[in-house]
Amino acid sequence: MRLRNKPEAPEKIAGYPQFIPENPEELKGNWSSRFDNNHPIHIEVGTGKGRFIYEMAKLHPEINYIGIELQVSVIVTALDKLIEAELPNLQLLHVNGGELTQYFEANEIDRVYLNFSDPWPKNKHEKRRLTYKTFLAGYEEILVPNGEIHFKTDNQGLFEYSLASFSQYGMILKQVWLDLHNSSFEGNVMTEYEEKFSNKGNRIYRVEAQFRA
Amino acid sequence: MRLRNKPEAPEKIAGYPQFIPENPEELKGNWSSRFDNNHPIHIEVGTGKGRFIYEMAKLHPEINYIGIELQVSVIVTALDKLIEAELPNLQLLHVNGGELTQYFEANEIDRVYLNFSDPWPKNKHEKRRLTYKTFLAGYEEILVPNGEIHFKTDNQGLFEYSLASFSQYGMILKQVWLDLHNSSFEGNVMTEYEEKFSNKGNRIYRVEAQFRA
Repeated sequence: MRLRNKPEAPEKIAGYPQFIPENPEELKGNWSSRFDNNHPIHIEVGTGKGRFIYEMAKLHPEINYIGIELQVSVIVTALDKLIEAELPNLQLLHVNGGELTQYFEANEIDRVYLNFSDPWPKNKHEKRRLTYKTFLAGYEEILVPNGEIHFKTDNQGLFEYSLASFSQYGMILKQVWLDLHNSSFEGNVMTEYEEKFSNKGNRIYRVEAQFRA
Repeated sequence: MRLRNKPEAPEKIAGYPQFIPENPEELKGNWSSRFDNNHPIHIEVGTGKGRFIYEMAKLHPEINYIGIELQVSVIVTALDKLIEAELPNLQLLHVNGGELTQYFEANEIDRVYLNFSDPWPKNKHEKRRLTYKTFLAGYEEILVPNGEIHFKTDNQGLFEYSLASFSQYGMILKQVWLDLHNSSFEGNVMTEYEEKFSNKGNRIYRVEAQFRA
């Protein structure tokens, strides 16, 4: 993703603590209070400009969503969507996706979405992939028993890697789609990236993987 | 596969008991004696006209191979290859791939190959797919602990199904190839079907899946 320098971004983020909490460590174990209900909580790790999580939150008011993104220059675009039209069931989190256990208690999260994560194609960068085992351990820790990861990408190498990584971690592949946009899957919400690259003719891959209890 | 009627086939098969054993039940637990060595034994379930298993046996004299095929009209073509040029490490078996435990003892087999198996695309035929759980249970019973299934197909639906089926059975996906012929995989031996359909532009999918000990 092309990152424009946005020197005003950190200041903007600080100006909307109702959408992007300032001290998210303090919310660990307290997210239901923050949302003021006991609905299930789904998070997206690497939420980018936020189209997916925003649309999901609009479509599913019975679910609470948290979009997590470290890049300040893109999370401000997600923030703009909330400033324009607030959603009570969507929060953003400007933190590192590798440190989720600092912000969520065990069993606090019901589902993790990973969408078009950076493929880090070089072998030496394997540990940076969001489907590498250390990340999976983090997701497992904060998820409910039998919690799920829903992952999609157009990157063939990352998808091949991730299927094996999920499986070798002990997860169950509930269902696999090798061409999502030409499948019977209903209710797909596209990311910005997904629309762009599927329009170019790229296949979109998807998997639902479940941790064992 | 188009099956020509070959009324002479059963008689031909009966004429070569050194290649296609007549009473395979009697070989259960005795395959190493039949091969006259203790080399690992790899089987192909649904061996068709036999190109894959014959080429594998030529390439890997340190492995014993057994090609299993129920259709008499195609196994005779595999038999013709052996009649033309015998291989000491290849046997054919004219039996039902769903009844393997009648012909093999527990731990007798080291690897199962499934190549371009019939996709049985209708849901009501799920139980006929060679990657359905009842077949997996049969493979598991005759395989060594941590035994592997190496599966390839050009059928997207069957591959999606099989990844989930392996995983839900408790198997580990060691590695997945979503476009085998454009990958770094070395030593691929093509089946008749594989050559035909990859020439048409179909992707070839492959997975190595391992039973837990």
